[in-house]
Amino acid sequence: MTIEPLKIQHDLVAWLTVAGDKIRQSLTDELHVKTKSGRNDLVTNRDKEIEQFYVRQIRTNYPQARICGEEGFGDVVEDLAGLIFFVDPIDGTMNFVKQKENFATMIGVYLDGQPIVGGILDVMAQKLIVGGPTTGVMLNGRPLSIRLDLNIADGLIGVNSGMLAKNVDHVTDLIRLSSGARITGSAGIEFGQVITGKQIGYISNLSPWDVAAGWAIGSALNIEAHTVTGQQPSLLKREIIIAGIPTIWQNFTKLQS
Amino acid sequence: MTIEPLKIQHDLVAWLTVAGDKIRQSLTDELHVKTKSGRNDLVTNRDKEIEQFYVRQIRTNYPQARICGEEGFGDVVEDLAGLIFFVDPIDGTMNFVKQKENFATMIGVYLDGQPIVGGILDVMAQKLIVGGPTTGVMLNGRPLSIRLDLNIADGLIGVNSGMLAKNVDHVTDLIRLSSGARITGSAGIEFGQVITGKQIGYISNLSPWDVAAGWAIGSALNIEAHTVTGQQPSLLKREIIIAGIPTIWQNFTKLQS
Repeated sequence: MTIEPLKIQHDLVAWLTVAGDKIRQSLTDELHVKTKSGRNDLVTNRDKEIEQFYVRQIRTNYPQARICGEEGFGDVVEDLAGLIFFVDPIDGTMNFVKQKENFATMIGVYLDGQPIVGGILDVMAQKLIVGGPTTGVMLNGRPLSIRLDLNIADGLIGVNSGMLAKNVDHVTDLIRLSSGARITGSAGIEFGQVITGKQIGYISNLSPWDVAAGWAIGSALNIEAHTVTGQQPSLLKREIIIAGIPTIWQNFTKLQS
Repeated sequence: MTIEPLKIQHDLVAWLTVAGDKIRQSLTDELHVKTKSGRNDLVTNRDKEIEQFYVRQIRTNYPQARICGEEGFGDVVEDLAGLIFFVDPIDGTMNFVKQKENFATMIGVYLDGQPIVGGILDVMAQKLIVGGPTTGVMLNGRPLSIRLDLNIADGLIGVNSGMLAKNVDHVTDLIRLSSGARITGSAGIEFGQVITGKQIGYISNLSPWDVAAGWAIGSALNIEAHTVTGQQPSLLKREIIIAGIPTIWQNFTKLQS
């Protein structure tokens, strides 16, 4: 399959920008909030509308692609063959509902399991990060680069509160070696912090649509993403992901032994 | 001592705004970072310059007042008699250094230990919250009100990572009853989230300058602040503070028994 990463990135910029406009414009409209897997796993009518918008765009422009979307309007994706768009219409729905800020809309695009491009829009801050291995990385149009040579003591780490509370996989021990923990409640915002050099890592239990955009963009900056066993993210199931500059994985593995 | 809360609030708006401008304008200037009590307790030349700016303003306009400032350019305050300005030039210095965002500059003003007015500026987001019991509360000039009747399950709680990791005073158990934990690394930003209704509580180990502004503003909205023994914040030493809408303290005390 021949693909043009720049064309896809160009389309992501347009779709994410329009979706962000839609979300901001509808902030005062009525919101129907439902729970999914548990009390704190929310979905709203807005999540569904935005995913349907993305699905329409992708079906029209990339009819050969499959879609893995958080709200289920795409396809059932059980392997990584071909072109796949991973779609998270509102990442951080709890923040969207409770804070009306600190949430993202994002898309990651992969070909045969390899990152092509991703886009993450911090909707309220209007910060759009797009990029991929062949296209470079930009924040609102400005090229980004980050320092990969920092030590664990030199930076902040985004983390999942349950993992921090229970020291899962020695994550709390890892945090103690760092400048501190941060919890924002949105994987997109957390990956954005790593990609812009504001955090050196992010560790959480993530679904494919949580990790796809951030990993596609991050891989262009040599930001690493591993499962606890050192594999690449599977993009097929929910799993713990250790993402960040090299010191994060080095110290994580050291703590497991 | 006769004081005019509105006049003080007017002055806080001016000083915080000018300080915010100074900090943003100097973001690209050289920063000298030193550690204080430990590896992750930072101070920069900018913290010191801004505190000195506030001290000059207060000495000129309120010569009868005492000043309790984080960086020590004020007075040694060992009791709460009279008019006291609690000054935190850069709250969230770690974020200031590592993220260049998510930090605040803030001042809380008390008369004989009673809150008069406070001001918190989220410097990079340019969100200024000011207010007090007799002046009302405003965010960038717009009056604020919040819901006090929410249940613990209905909202997010800001927390200190060490307390979350160790379940200090059953704080982790409290978080499990809520919509989730958030960690921003700035007491001013966390109090701002509570005051604007984006979080229902904030629990951390706080110095007087960390709590003074938020409590002065929050008290005007009937946001509560307690020590672990149910006292008002002492404003004289570092101590754990449980702040939030009534459900936070009710559930906190239930979990201690």
